[in-house]
Amino acid sequence: MQLLERAKQLEAAGRRIVHMEIGEPDFSTPASVIDAAHAALDSGDSFYTPSTGNPALQQAIARWYREEYGVDVSPERILITPGTSGAFSLIYAALIEAGESVLLSDPGYPCQRNFIRLAGGEPVSVPVGPETLYHLSPGLIEQYWQSGTRAAVVINPSNPTGTLISDDALQQVAATCRRLGGYLISDEIYHGLTYGLKARCALEFDDNAIVVNGFSKRWAMTGWRIGWVIVPEELIDACRRVMQNIFIAAPTLSQYAAIAALRATDDCERMRLAYDERRRYLLEALPELGFDIVVQPQGAFYIYANVERITDDAKSFCWEILENVGVAITPGEDFGTYRAAGHVRFSYATGMDDIRLGVARLREWLQPVSA
Amino acid sequence: MQLLERAKQLEAAGRRIVHMEIGEPDFSTPASVIDAAHAALDSGDSFYTPSTGNPALQQAIARWYREEYGVDVSPERILITPGTSGAFSLIYAALIEAGESVLLSDPGYPCQRNFIRLAGGEPVSVPVGPETLYHLSPGLIEQYWQSGTRAAVVINPSNPTGTLISDDALQQVAATCRRLGGYLISDEIYHGLTYGLKARCALEFDDNAIVVNGFSKRWAMTGWRIGWVIVPEELIDACRRVMQNIFIAAPTLSQYAAIAALRATDDCERMRLAYDERRRYLLEALPELGFDIVVQPQGAFYIYANVERITDDAKSFCWEILENVGVAITPGEDFGTYRAAGHVRFSYATGMDDIRLGVARLREWLQPVSA
Ligand SMILES: Cc1ncc(COP(=O)(O)O)c(C=O)c1O
Ligand SMILES: Cc1ncc(COP(=O)(O)O)c(C=O)c1O
Repeated sequence: MQLLERAKQLEAAGRRIVHMEIGEPDFSTPASVIDAAHAALDSGDSFYTPSTGNPALQQAIARWYREEYGVDVSPERILITPGTSGAFSLIYAALIEAGESVLLSDPGYPCQRNFIRLAGGEPVSVPVGPETLYHLSPGLIEQYWQSGTRAAVVINPSNPTGTLISDDALQQVAATCRRLGGYLISDEIYHGLTYGLKARCALEFDDNAIVVNGFSKRWAMTGWRIGWVIVPEELIDACRRVMQNIFIAAPTLSQYAAIAALRATDDCERMRLAYDERRRYLLEALPELGFDIVVQPQGAFYIYANVERITDDAKSFCWEILENVGVAITPGEDFGTYRAAGHVRFSYATGMDDIRLGVARLREWLQPVSA
Repeated sequence: MQLLERAKQLEAAGRRIVHMEIGEPDFSTPASVIDAAHAALDSGDSFYTPSTGNPALQQAIARWYREEYGVDVSPERILITPGTSGAFSLIYAALIEAGESVLLSDPGYPCQRNFIRLAGGEPVSVPVGPETLYHLSPGLIEQYWQSGTRAAVVINPSNPTGTLISDDALQQVAATCRRLGGYLISDEIYHGLTYGLKARCALEFDDNAIVVNGFSKRWAMTGWRIGWVIVPEELIDACRRVMQNIFIAAPTLSQYAAIAALRATDDCERMRLAYDERRRYLLEALPELGFDIVVQPQGAFYIYANVERITDDAKSFCWEILENVGVAITPGEDFGTYRAAGHVRFSYATGMDDIRLGVARLREWLQPVSA
């Protein structure tokens, strides 16, 4: 976060900075979605939607699940939220009593810890490594689960590692959570951004899983603040009560835009192909510079690299290359503590020219190190 | 809430329902704001704003405070949130530790209690009546304040009563909160919707007050989900951390629209005059039907009426008139417990024709009662 601020400061001062630290698509929202938003603007509907969302969007998402994953979800189970961020606020508020805990992977998406804490719960960090493709496994869940544990979170594909959980592991993780009396929470916000294989929806394996997703990444709609969460029947009422109180509703116009987004398949494919080109370039270039990519990432727009051959202090290294060669990447410590000083995250949500420039700058800067 | 659902059900079945239960402007967003949103849509900026908001909006709001209230607020103290609902989530998360308490008026805006509970705090209901224009007073605050109390909330003009706090009382309430070591939180979302006098901003009296406001009511922008909170310097960092984590940011397009809204003065005046006409009509008609209006409301779009001459059970009465004559109003119990069974809230955020129809229906229905 501070590093991002410093990067912007340097930029404002005239430096050209290569932004490989940002977790946001560099693409604008697809034109067909913008068109739909223009039409919605002219409709005069600027009112609150029902707190659970515009029913037309709930239905469109239900259809989407049938077509994309072959799973049947009734629209009432699909709750529309202000971003997936809103979905997390919501489910933890509905799910957790003070002192109860939720299992998270370390490394993982850093905001999770804070969502859980704000709901009065306790985030439990579970160290994960290449053995489990940086994901929670059934064994780890058994090991860390306690009496007050309510859920385990899988981010698939993962931020920061870009790795997918295996189908088998996902199925077993779901079964384990259920057997232990809790929920699997599957953060599927990077679905659709996968390269060479398809991410499976947790609902394909367990109808009781809580699935969180949103329009920010695959559809390049971060600023619209639209996400959703699919909850089991038994949680709908509790969630509805929370939503009425804390959000009132998600943005109305964004919900109309989201309906159109679900049809913007070609635009999504165009963006996906662009990410994949960048990914393949970096997967080749980075190891030559000393960044070890232990598990090939096949999703999201992240590469998680081991930097132990280059430094024993990833954080200082990131600051150093920002100040000296204007390349911004994120130190492992932003995602947890487990082996954090030995890792960094590259984001390739930035244009190919900048990525090439970043690699060239790193090559020059690292020469003396590898020499 | 259930009553609102039933009203919609009856409507779907073909009944004409008079909606005087809804707390949302019946006007669409002003055309000049829609125009600005069209332009912003075409700009290609669909990205996250900084978590504290688009700096141009922060600056425009700072200017607004100078012009509207003559108070100087630096833009960094103005945090842009997803609705004022977001502002409340934010400040309670930043302000309250588990078990700490916040003073609220009873009757008052019902979501407040839940925001505080979700942050692990304890809402303390302070019964208020006509003596204090249904507002907290310095005396009441002293009486209810305890060692773990962090703040007292004033909603001015008030939901559900439509009454303004007096300038003197506001000044003294602010001074009392400060003397007791806590904050005044002033919910000013109904500012600009006042009739015959102007609501004062808490910052005119106390630079340390926390002021919450938003575009939903005065600007008829509920569906855009844009609010703001002005915090003292000492809270900025804590709030920023919360915002980065729980919202990421408020909707980007809505923030552009909000900048334009601040210039839509004529549209706001047009809506205000329409509300005022309805208000004056109801203030005359309702007492003749047996609804006692103890304090003349001069703000928002609500009238809080004592129904003790008609019924000793306001809730059953509301259901009765909904089912029998298709008029929807809100029972006192939705806003607290203090003398709740003897009160109802009328909202005049609905067209004059419907309001006249509602009054005619009530007159007919109540004939036998008053005869
Ligand atoms: C794994 C993961 N989940 C959720 C989010 C939140 O995104 P949003 O609130 O924009 O939907 C992000 C954003 O970076 C993310 O990386
Ligand atoms: C007193 C008061 N505060 C806050 C709100 C929340 O409004 P929003 O989240 O749309 O800004 C409302 C809405 O009814 C209200 O009446």
